[in-house]
Amino acid sequence: MTQIVRGVAQLRRITQGWRRAGDLVGVVPTMGALHDGHLSLVRAAQAECDRVIVTLFINPRQFNNPEDFAKYPRTEAADAAILAPLSADVLFVPDAAEIYPPGHVSAVTVGGVSGPLEGAHRPGHFDGVATVVAMLFNMTQADRAYFGEKDWQQLQVVRRMVADLQMPVQVVPCPSVRDPDGLAMSSRNQRLSAAARAQAATIPAVLFDAAGRIGAGGDVAQVLDAARARLEGAGLGPVEYLALRDAETLGEAQPGRGARLLLAVWLDGVRLIDNVAV
Amino acid sequence: MTQIVRGVAQLRRITQGWRRAGDLVGVVPTMGALHDGHLSLVRAAQAECDRVIVTLFINPRQFNNPEDFAKYPRTEAADAAILAPLSADVLFVPDAAEIYPPGHVSAVTVGGVSGPLEGAHRPGHFDGVATVVAMLFNMTQADRAYFGEKDWQQLQVVRRMVADLQMPVQVVPCPSVRDPDGLAMSSRNQRLSAAARAQAATIPAVLFDAAGRIGAGGDVAQVLDAARARLEGAGLGPVEYLALRDAETLGEAQPGRGARLLLAVWLDGVRLIDNVAV
Repeated sequence: MTQIVRGVAQLRRITQGWRRAGDLVGVVPTMGALHDGHLSLVRAAQAECDRVIVTLFINPRQFNNPEDFAKYPRTEAADAAILAPLSADVLFVPDAAEIYPPGHVSAVTVGGVSGPLEGAHRPGHFDGVATVVAMLFNMTQADRAYFGEKDWQQLQVVRRMVADLQMPVQVVPCPSVRDPDGLAMSSRNQRLSAAARAQAATIPAVLFDAAGRIGAGGDVAQVLDAARARLEGAGLGPVEYLALRDAETLGEAQPGRGARLLLAVWLDGVRLIDNVAV
Repeated sequence: MTQIVRGVAQLRRITQGWRRAGDLVGVVPTMGALHDGHLSLVRAAQAECDRVIVTLFINPRQFNNPEDFAKYPRTEAADAAILAPLSADVLFVPDAAEIYPPGHVSAVTVGGVSGPLEGAHRPGHFDGVATVVAMLFNMTQADRAYFGEKDWQQLQVVRRMVADLQMPVQVVPCPSVRDPDGLAMSSRNQRLSAAARAQAATIPAVLFDAAGRIGAGGDVAQVLDAARARLEGAGLGPVEYLALRDAETLGEAQPGRGARLLLAVWLDGVRLIDNVAV
């Protein structure tokens, strides 16, 4: 039975009891519209932790685009129902007025890794992410925090923040969960028409193919050009970025370091992102 | 017997044991050059907490002026000796290389309250303060943190940060400690010549007198003009600011809210600050 908690004081009372009992606490930060990707994070947390908090907060500060914020799915009742079989300990659904009361003027910023790709196309996005994640860490005082690799750059921003600011939490990355046709699960997929949803399968097909070619020694620029053409040929676009980057810093890929192929592309008025290892 | 700890991992091992035992942990952040003002913070922490950590870190990021950083007193052996009779549990003296390793790109910023006065005269100062204080909170995981009212604006910045970011720590303000002639104790006082040290007694005399006149209904602009003239007449100056402000926001003083009279003034090549209630 998952307890729904809306206030920070109530959450603190609960977690204080857990800490006194020596329980290891995991947190899974979400913006709701839960799907199997989120559930895989909850299961990973439950496998490692004594207590699991799922947070549901659609953070206005990380939306650079007001329309995206307005259209973001809000499905708390369905989320609670989807979560019910897993019996997480707490579903924390804070009120925006408590998270950002009048006069809230503090922020966490992460340089470097937050600059390119998503950072360049969504100004302020990662400041909003870093700030709310820091706040969720402070509110839950979790020992471990579970993030999906689907939002690869976000994961690296959070890791950088945790390391830099010596936050007492361990960040646990979890693999992207994909639909049978390969599309990475995302709350934004709900907004695709049936036709666009079918087209979207091109995204992982192109990404995995390009990553394979680059891994096999193919010329990066040629492979990426061909991949971009294939996406656009399948009716997707515009492609905001399709880039091979250092997996940790998101700077230029370096020989001998892990690399990641990352994509942001528009389809049917929805902006989708994905990434794969190279 | 105060244990000197230099590494974050060692500190975490110690504090983890304390937390398991249910101990209440207090932290007193300092930049060393300890004086009775700092010791009053340590005593306040010891009166309330089971365990007390004194931190000593001359934080390069909060010095906007490289000369001020270079000249800041570095007196670790003397600090340990001064602290010895109090038997704080831990003196945490982290290495700058561990606090700011290469690639450290994260920061905490506090808007509003950090803007005027010190913020205007020392660009970047409060970003450096907020960041290192957040890090010290994360490293010590203290339940309570003790700050002197001598650095009034810093205290308000830290309180704002803690409230905004939901940090699980209680900020405890402690009154300024003054020498017999009224000068607020400060590590920078060490840098004054004997003659300048004697002149410096004018600062609290003028501040308390002006606060009394304003509290008694005197015209603020006239009182501040006279106070400034008295300081300059006594050979102090330039006065960087002498201002009546809202005690919490450091914005304009408002009827019905607490007010504070704050001063920054140069003397003998040393920048001194002080403040008093109105």
